[in-house]
Amino acid sequence: MSAQLQEVSHYLSACTIPVAAGDGIGPEIMEATLSILRAADPNLRFVPVTVGLKAYESGLLSGIGEDTWAAIKKHGVILKGPVMTPQGGGYKSVNVTLRKTLGMYANLRPCTSYAPYVTSMHHKMDVVIVRENEEDTYAGIEHRQSEEVYQCLKLVTRPGCERIVRYAFEYAKLHGRKKVTCMTKDNIMKMTDGIFHKVFDEIALEYPDIQNNHMIIDIGTARMASRPNDFDVVVTTNLYGDILSDVAAEVAGSIGLAGSSNVGNTCAMFEAVHGSAPDIADMNIANPSGLLQSAVMMLVHLGRNAAAGKIHNAWLLTLEDGLHTADIYRDGISTRKLGTREFAEAIIERLGQKPRKLGAVDYPEQTRNQNNRLNISPLPTRKSVKKLVGVDVFLNWDKDERNPESLGQQLEKIAGPEFCLSLITNRGVKVYPQGKLQTVCTDHWRCRFLLDGNDNNPHAIAHLLSRITNESLDAVKTENLYDFDGVRGYSQAQGE
Amino acid sequence: MSAQLQEVSHYLSACTIPVAAGDGIGPEIMEATLSILRAADPNLRFVPVTVGLKAYESGLLSGIGEDTWAAIKKHGVILKGPVMTPQGGGYKSVNVTLRKTLGMYANLRPCTSYAPYVTSMHHKMDVVIVRENEEDTYAGIEHRQSEEVYQCLKLVTRPGCERIVRYAFEYAKLHGRKKVTCMTKDNIMKMTDGIFHKVFDEIALEYPDIQNNHMIIDIGTARMASRPNDFDVVVTTNLYGDILSDVAAEVAGSIGLAGSSNVGNTCAMFEAVHGSAPDIADMNIANPSGLLQSAVMMLVHLGRNAAAGKIHNAWLLTLEDGLHTADIYRDGISTRKLGTREFAEAIIERLGQKPRKLGAVDYPEQTRNQNNRLNISPLPTRKSVKKLVGVDVFLNWDKDERNPESLGQQLEKIAGPEFCLSLITNRGVKVYPQGKLQTVCTDHWRCRFLLDGNDNNPHAIAHLLSRITNESLDAVKTENLYDFDGVRGYSQAQGE
Repeated sequence: MSAQLQEVSHYLSACTIPVAAGDGIGPEIMEATLSILRAADPNLRFVPVTVGLKAYESGLLSGIGEDTWAAIKKHGVILKGPVMTPQGGGYKSVNVTLRKTLGMYANLRPCTSYAPYVTSMHHKMDVVIVRENEEDTYAGIEHRQSEEVYQCLKLVTRPGCERIVRYAFEYAKLHGRKKVTCMTKDNIMKMTDGIFHKVFDEIALEYPDIQNNHMIIDIGTARMASRPNDFDVVVTTNLYGDILSDVAAEVAGSIGLAGSSNVGNTCAMFEAVHGSAPDIADMNIANPSGLLQSAVMMLVHLGRNAAAGKIHNAWLLTLEDGLHTADIYRDGISTRKLGTREFAEAIIERLGQKPRKLGAVDYPEQTRNQNNRLNISPLPTRKSVKKLVGVDVFLNWDKDERNPESLGQQLEKIAGPEFCLSLITNRGVKVYPQGKLQTVCTDHWRCRFLLDGNDNNPHAIAHLLSRITNESLDAVKTENLYDFDGVRGYSQAQGE
Repeated sequence: MSAQLQEVSHYLSACTIPVAAGDGIGPEIMEATLSILRAADPNLRFVPVTVGLKAYESGLLSGIGEDTWAAIKKHGVILKGPVMTPQGGGYKSVNVTLRKTLGMYANLRPCTSYAPYVTSMHHKMDVVIVRENEEDTYAGIEHRQSEEVYQCLKLVTRPGCERIVRYAFEYAKLHGRKKVTCMTKDNIMKMTDGIFHKVFDEIALEYPDIQNNHMIIDIGTARMASRPNDFDVVVTTNLYGDILSDVAAEVAGSIGLAGSSNVGNTCAMFEAVHGSAPDIADMNIANPSGLLQSAVMMLVHLGRNAAAGKIHNAWLLTLEDGLHTADIYRDGISTRKLGTREFAEAIIERLGQKPRKLGAVDYPEQTRNQNNRLNISPLPTRKSVKKLVGVDVFLNWDKDERNPESLGQQLEKIAGPEFCLSLITNRGVKVYPQGKLQTVCTDHWRCRFLLDGNDNNPHAIAHLLSRITNESLDAVKTENLYDFDGVRGYSQAQGE
């Protein structure tokens, strides 16, 4: 052990990290990664916990052992290998459940080019994608409502937007990044994506030293593929971030080498981006770099910056030296093809050295403090005046050749005394009154009832539902309509 | 006029096409495009109609003049320039409204590389993206439900999936394409994206001569950026298709040159992919190629294949000859920088000639028939047995430090007699019974009530809502829970 390493181990007290090896290549890349961690920072202790197939097979649909929940609660972090989710049978994704149950709202995905040592479409690329991790259509709330119609809820909350946007700016500040770009589709989803964009603009004002801009996600993702150097830190919603971060990693050429972190206020999870690759398991050929990069992010999170920098630089030098696992081995660039274990040994041999061509990383000690965890508190909740102004009742209706005039006339009669029928839409398009004949209609009708006058009787909706049911009409869902501080809290119909 | 052109014009009878010039560079690129169409097919007639700023300014929030609705109804097609949607003020997107109101369910986006004449990241690329055009979160149904929570509905219908998937396979068959790839995120959205994938698998069986596969949209989009040659025809949902087609066009290098079509059973709209670029309007420097490519797709749709091929090949030859508008002009590749009008004249001069290096296109006469319109009828509706088994009631609740135990105990008392409380989730994560303390809760709670026993009283939900209201609890929405033919029609909670 070098003098420098001695210094690190003296400096920091012991620290215990729960590790979940996962499935497929998980155990062997975890073993390789832990061997490097032990060599760089002897005061680390590791406690194995259960996730993935072993947990599923023991009957836990979540794929998460009780020991895992307890260890994360106690130690506040987990280093996790890739996990396989069995198809069907009600099995839930380990990652989604851990992220959401433990409030790990921020998913960080650094996407870096290591050209020319690893094939990349872009020779310079160093982007960090900050993806919201808990909301959006990934809440998994789905309902089948009729013979034809399936629905998923996209939920976006103001505190959720505030947390992730502030995290992105704080991350940029802490790591010396220059620009934060927000991506949404708020030209279409004016309320859900609109609130994300609005919160971004509000919070950006608090960081005058960091540039900011907004792009529509379609062209933003396209530009990430063609001109990633336009970007520094990008913050976006869950689904867009999922797609965008895969595009960024792919054009960087480093999807197999990329780490990621999932960060909340009370705990954080570090995991590789790639899957469990069962076809190459137990062959000592898998590349442990993704998990190792995640472990480096974890060390920074824990304030063990010196060890993090040491490992990161040794890994870069190993790449430069052409010592490559099979997945990135290329004639002319690589010098030797190494197995998983041998690759880890090559990194251990280089601990304390720096890369010559690829820029050496530096995790300055001044960032080594509690701020590393970027504990973001939400703003105090505001209190708007919420006023009920009506209700959208969704009917499953398949009569009279789906002629909206027929349905409209029937509903006009039963809307009163509390409500009047404002319009009917089908898949968001107005079909009553005065629809277009060409509109293709499903068996699922959104019927908008507005409260007549200032009657704000909270029982009105239950009464309306009773009248609808009495007419043998089949109401499958309701969405109340509110104004907030006098501003309409619901979208207009297409064609309205 | 050459003998060949005479032949075309004799062969096909006159045909009238409504044309909407649009805003910004719209009028000048439309003029250039029509000059080429007139030269290639003198039996075409054009009737100008109103969309965009002119319509918005006359007070039409839809941006669509009555003359436009009438002309599309009469002629079944429209050629449209780019349109600007004013921000705010309730203005609706012309494109979305036209597509949805007129049932134009299929959006076709060919993405082709013209390397080395136009800069591209991939020298060979010829992909067609078939994007569903009417459903998904683009139905624009949004509701704000509490101080914190905004919601958008994602709607997917089985007939919608059947139409677009069948269109993709029929298109592949008609145009000699070899493979259709489906992209969804059905590992997360098992019901909405699940039905799209399921219908794809069903319909693929009917086309044994065409290869098919499915990819998750995140890695699929990434691969489109890095290896577009893996793809031929891709079919996907509205939002994914929006992002994917921009990525594909961008890496092809042809976003400014790309046409698109929007096709329904009774009409079709053809438009460039790019925007109205007001900053360069009226300067005779805009590139009319995107609109021209759309016009070529329109001619094929109308069965005027000979004229379509003639224009397409003359345009390819003009690119090859290095006669370029400013946007694609590059020293060393281009020979002359042309204005909008002069570029159109160069194409007209080359009508009847074929490109030497870029592959000449061929629109065979045998495809010139009614089938060009690919009039897809939905399958007959099935009839499942739908059984009400419960209801998800969503509450806006912000008391008792948002402790789910407190809410759960209150609801247990009022669930009966019809229902029992099954669980409470917050943003999809189970928080009652037996939630995790770390779960971050918003002011928006999904409370799942299951019908107790076999009681299928349709009034039960109205009664439950009344009891909830009597407790001064604020129910903001409901989603009924159904089984269809005994199969559960709603998702489980995360952590359930």
